[in-house]
This record gives sequence, C-alpha cells and structure tokens, in this order.
Amino acid sequence: MAVFSAQEYGERLRKTRERMHEQGVEVLLVSHPANMNYLTGFDGWSFYVHQGLIVALDHDEPLWFGREQDSNAARILTSLREEDILGYPDHYVMSKLRHPMDFVADILKERGWDRLHIGVEMEGYYFTAEGFRVLGRNLPGAVVKDGTLVVNLVRRVKSEAEIEYIRQAARIAEKVMNTALETIVPGVRENDAAGEIYKAQISGTAEFGGDYTSLCPIMPSAERTSSAHLTWCTDRRYENGDIVLLELAGARHHYHCPISRTLFLGEPRPELQKIADAVIGGLNETVAFIRPGVTAEEVEAKWRESIAGTGVNKPSRVGYSFGLNYPPDWGEQTLSLRPADTTILQPGMCIHFMPGIWMKDFGFECSEPLVVTEKGCELFLNFERKLFSK
Amino acid sequence: MAVFSAQEYGERLRKTRERMHEQGVEVLLVSHPANMNYLTGFDGWSFYVHQGLIVALDHDEPLWFGREQDSNAARILTSLREEDILGYPDHYVMSKLRHPMDFVADILKERGWDRLHIGVEMEGYYFTAEGFRVLGRNLPGAVVKDGTLVVNLVRRVKSEAEIEYIRQAARIAEKVMNTALETIVPGVRENDAAGEIYKAQISGTAEFGGDYTSLCPIMPSAERTSSAHLTWCTDRRYENGDIVLLELAGARHHYHCPISRTLFLGEPRPELQKIADAVIGGLNETVAFIRPGVTAEEVEAKWRESIAGTGVNKPSRVGYSFGLNYPPDWGEQTLSLRPADTTILQPGMCIHFMPGIWMKDFGFECSEPLVVTEKGCELFLNFERKLFSK
Repeated sequence: MAVFSAQEYGERLRKTRERMHEQGVEVLLVSHPANMNYLTGFDGWSFYVHQGLIVALDHDEPLWFGREQDSNAARILTSLREEDILGYPDHYVMSKLRHPMDFVADILKERGWDRLHIGVEMEGYYFTAEGFRVLGRNLPGAVVKDGTLVVNLVRRVKSEAEIEYIRQAARIAEKVMNTALETIVPGVRENDAAGEIYKAQISGTAEFGGDYTSLCPIMPSAERTSSAHLTWCTDRRYENGDIVLLELAGARHHYHCPISRTLFLGEPRPELQKIADAVIGGLNETVAFIRPGVTAEEVEAKWRESIAGTGVNKPSRVGYSFGLNYPPDWGEQTLSLRPADTTILQPGMCIHFMPGIWMKDFGFECSEPLVVTEKGCELFLNFERKLFSK
Repeated sequence: MAVFSAQEYGERLRKTRERMHEQGVEVLLVSHPANMNYLTGFDGWSFYVHQGLIVALDHDEPLWFGREQDSNAARILTSLREEDILGYPDHYVMSKLRHPMDFVADILKERGWDRLHIGVEMEGYYFTAEGFRVLGRNLPGAVVKDGTLVVNLVRRVKSEAEIEYIRQAARIAEKVMNTALETIVPGVRENDAAGEIYKAQISGTAEFGGDYTSLCPIMPSAERTSSAHLTWCTDRRYENGDIVLLELAGARHHYHCPISRTLFLGEPRPELQKIADAVIGGLNETVAFIRPGVTAEEVEAKWRESIAGTGVNKPSRVGYSFGLNYPPDWGEQTLSLRPADTTILQPGMCIHFMPGIWMKDFGFECSEPLVVTEKGCELFLNFERKLFSK
C-alpha cells in the first residue's frame, strides 16, 4: 500500500527534525498537503478543512489532526499509531463559534508543548491568517515562528525512489502532450480538447496510472496567450491562425513532470518563429550549463546571456524547483532561477526550466524539467523542442 | 466574452459595498478566486501567487493587483480600467526579500487608504498568515479586520442568471455520473475510470462545455469508503464486492452542480442496503421540508428526526451552500446544515444536501443539490436516488 518504504519515511522525518533543531523549532505544525504526504504518506482531498501533522522534537512520531470523518484515511494510508490520530468533531468546521486551531492548541497544552518554539507554515495555502491568530491567542506562552520551508527544503533534494516516480510521470507527460498536439485542430471545442488532455493525465500509461496535477492544464489560445495561467476557453472552437500555449504535466503518486510546448494552427508568423528560435536556442545553451555547484542565479544569467541580442525580453524567473505536490501549485516555493537566488545546485534537485514569454498580443512556451546529477543534469522528457504547427 | 452582464457585476459590487458599510470595512482586500471572479469576471489559475481586488468605499471600481505576467488576464477578461490594473514585478514572487503584501501596502499608502478599516479574508486559502503579518507591519495606522465572508455572504443568494448556469452544470453532472456508473466494472483500473469521469466533466455536453471542478472526483472504493475525501486508488482494479462512493460534479463557468451516489459491484450486502434505504428515506423527507423561512438547523433536525430508529448515525453536517468556486472547495463556507446554524433559508440560496455516511469499514453517499424557491425548493438533478449495483 505504501508508496515508499518505511525506511524512506523515517529518513525524511530524521532530516526534518534536524532542520527543526537548526532553526530553533521545537514543534512544527505541518499543514501543506505535500509535506503531510512526504512525511507520512497521507493523501486525500481533505485539505480544504484544517488538518496537519504535529512534529515534536520530544515525540518519536508525528501526530495527525484533522476532521473526524477524514481520520480513517490516516488509519488506512499511514503507519501512524492509533493514539496519534486525533480527529476533531464536525462542529469545528467552518464555524463562527470554534476554530480547528482551538483543538490544536488543546493538543499542544495537553502534551506540555504550549510554551515551546512552535513553527507554522506562515506562507502555506492551508494554514490561514485566522488559524495563526487563533493559535497565538490560545498559546500566550509559546513563541510562534515561521516554519514554511522547513519540510519544503528537505523535499528539495529527491531520493532515487522519488526521481523514479518523476521519470514515470514523464512518460505520462509525453502522452499528455502528444494527445494535446493531436486533438487540437480548427473546429474542435477547446473544452473537448481539454477533456482528452485530462483523460490522458489521469488514465496515464498502461504501465503507470496517473494522478491529478497541481495546476489544471494551462492552455490559452489566441489573444489569451498574452497572459500566464489562463486555461482553455469553454465553448470556443479553435481557428486557423491560433497560437495555443500548452503548459501541462503528468503526475504519478503526486510527483509531477511538467512539460510546456507551443502549437500554431497554420503557418507561423515570422515574428513568432523568431521568438521560438531564440527561446529554444537559449534553452539548449542553458540546460547544457546546469551542473552541481553553480547557483540558481548563475543559471539565469547564462540564460540571459544566451538570448542577448535576440529581441526576447524575459523579466520573470525562468524556472523553479518542483516535485511532489497538491493544488494549487507544483512548484516548491524554494529555488527560483532568477537574480539574487544564491541556492547552490545539488544532485537530486529537480528544476523546471520554463522560460515562458508573454507579450502584449501573444506568448510562447517551451520548457524542460530536469534533475541535477553528479556531473550535470538528466532531462526527464524525450520530446522535440520546437514550435509545433499544423 | 463576459459571462454576466455589466449590470449584474454592478449589482454585485453595490451589494458588497453595502455589506462593507454595515461591517465597518472601508477597504476590502478580496483574495478568494471565486470572489474575484464574482465581482469582475477575472478567471485564471494564477491564485497560487498573491493576487486580489481592492474594493474601497471611496473608489467606484475595484483595483486588481497581481503578478505582472498575469495582468493581461485582467485586461482581457474584465472591464476594469487600465489604471486600476496593477501588476507587481516578478521579484515579489515567493521571495525571502519581498512580499506581495509590501506592494499592496504601497498601493494603500499612495491612495491614502492606509489609516482606514481594512477587511482581509482571514480564513481564505490564498491570503496567508504571512500576508497578514506583512500587511500589518506596513500599515501601523490601519485597523485590519476579518472580512472573510463579506463577498461570500453576497454570493450566497444567487441571481436567475447564476441559477441557470447551475442548471447547465446539472446536465453535465448527470452525464458525469452516468459515465461513472457505466465505466466502473470489475477489472477496470480505477484511474482509467477516473480519466473517463474527468473527460466527461471537462468536455461537458454538446450544448454546455464544462469546466474543472473545485474538488477532484472523490471516488474511493472498498475499505477506502470508510473515509471522506479519498480519491481513486491509482493502478488498483475494481473487484467484485467493491463499494464505490462517487462524489462528483459538473461545472459551468465555475458554477458547480455536485452529485453523490454509491455503486456496489455485485449483490449488495443487506447491511448496506439497509443504510441506503434509511438515508434515502431521510433525504426524501428532508428535501420535501425545505422552504424559505426555515433555518439551517431546522433542516438538520428534520433529517435527524427522519432517520431516528434506523440505526444510521450521522455526526457531521448534512449540507452546505455551494455555487461559484475554485479549488479546493465548491462549498461557500457560509451556511451549514447542522445544529446552531440559525441561517434563515431564502429564495436563491443553493444547498447541497449531502448526508454522507462513513463508518468503520465502509460508507454510503446519496445527495441532492437544490435551490430554495419562493415556495419550496427546486432540485437541480434528475437522477435516480438509490444504491446502484451491477
């Protein structure tokens, strides 16, 4: 049943404790669904209510807390002890009278952890400002501090078992992109193409079943390609002359492999082809440069040098760390390829090199996800880098 | 292009201002993607970075703020004025050096709004505790207060145009459930069934194109049905004797119509049939009771009375307000059918009556989404209420 060995979960917990110790965090509240999964294997769409793990330096296993009706998921999916699975009654859910962090504060008090240094995921999606306020009000003797990246930074360097799941996700991602390139033709409704893409993602390959991805398929057409993060346009039919950006992914046990390509319906305009050539040239040069020991900002500088003089302007980051994740993002909020990010690349880091271009009227995307190896990097995908057209 | 008339957006803004005035909120920061969409039509998967609307009582239109690369989406999808679309540079994104709320605080200072009563969505997924801290640090003269439900409470009563989109979503939901009931047979991989379900959701019907839903398909099988919110089990094949819970939905322009049913592969065990009969009997009685003027807790009491003596135990809420939404939830965090919720039902409120049962070894689900009308309620679905088996 478990997606990883007990030994691997143990190692993750050990590294998390080590980092807690370094950062002066005695108790860590883990609300991020990917971090919960990473440490225990817990996996459900219950993160829309407050739930989490409590990792305490003086307790050997994490505690799970969450809504009572979701607690059997912890029993089925994790090896946590029965006495460490703490479900709260339903009257804590979305109530004006009580907050789940009241319940959490009671746990901390009962265990004598209410006067310690408590780390919380301040910048996490599923912790909330109100949770922070309620927790602080209940724990006047505690020092509540930011622990957003404690587990994320452990997750940033992947094990061989994790990298293998991303390789499997890459096979799904290739199938997904091929499905998109085949399905999108003039006259087809955009949502029908999106439906086929979703089916390919979730069904996966005959060998590797798929999973939902943390971002929905980003696939704007025509003028919508001038913005990042737009999806298909429901009911619209593709037309000759459309540019279509395809920012897709495959996922295997919540490990992602992203892939971005661009499709033009018809004969691409020269200005688009010129941008495509510049971006792909820069991408090729930059990927060849990536190796352990260089910094994130050096990779970005290499990219900027590669596209100098081509007329392409790229003011935003050109990549980020990715891996295990849940909606709304498959990025890890740690490494970004941009100036001032001095992270030193290490073997096992997974980076989506994604130099997306969004201009006034249209955009272009072509990306490569990769893992840093001992000597350079391994590309996850085997997928032609070009401006596709038909 | 716009999904609703300018008049409808104007009316929503007027009601929001009215509620702000009542609650003593002079400036409202709207981070919830559904609230952003509700007030302006903005729609993209960019909510994984900080973005929002700023609604000020002394400014006639909302301001949009967000990542620069996403700002063209505001230009394309909304009728906001160019000078009210404020993109921030990429170095604010997931940085240890700057926070997007620094940018927002600067806007508030420039406009002279930094000493007012400022409402923020404290319990929203996409505001964050860190955002709250940074905003407070930047605005020592402001009173920052909770405005989580300001727009949610306006949204709770739907217009006829909104209800029509939910009716369209219902046609999609029926197709989705039929797809699930047809596809799930012993020997099929669970992820392949899920792939067909996703395709049906997104493709929609010939008349009404679909959209992604705010929860993924919740479709546990076998022992996993003992927990709420579990999805399919990738790579597993359905077996004779499996119970499968199907908590699905259709969505049209982000307006949801949820639907829950239960499928048994084989001849259902008598204990399961008994629970199904009790739940469906209670559901029928309770739905017949729903009308304007009764309270949310009275509806729940009616349900509890209906199932008294059947052996069914349901300790959690039996329904909630739903409608326009984005991941991770299609519920609206306002009305819950449970004791102590004294909300009075009004025409235009949409409720998912969802008495999900999760026991030690298995569960059962059958639900009805409905809209409160002048005299009673209208059921959105035309779908048999029973324990399905094959």
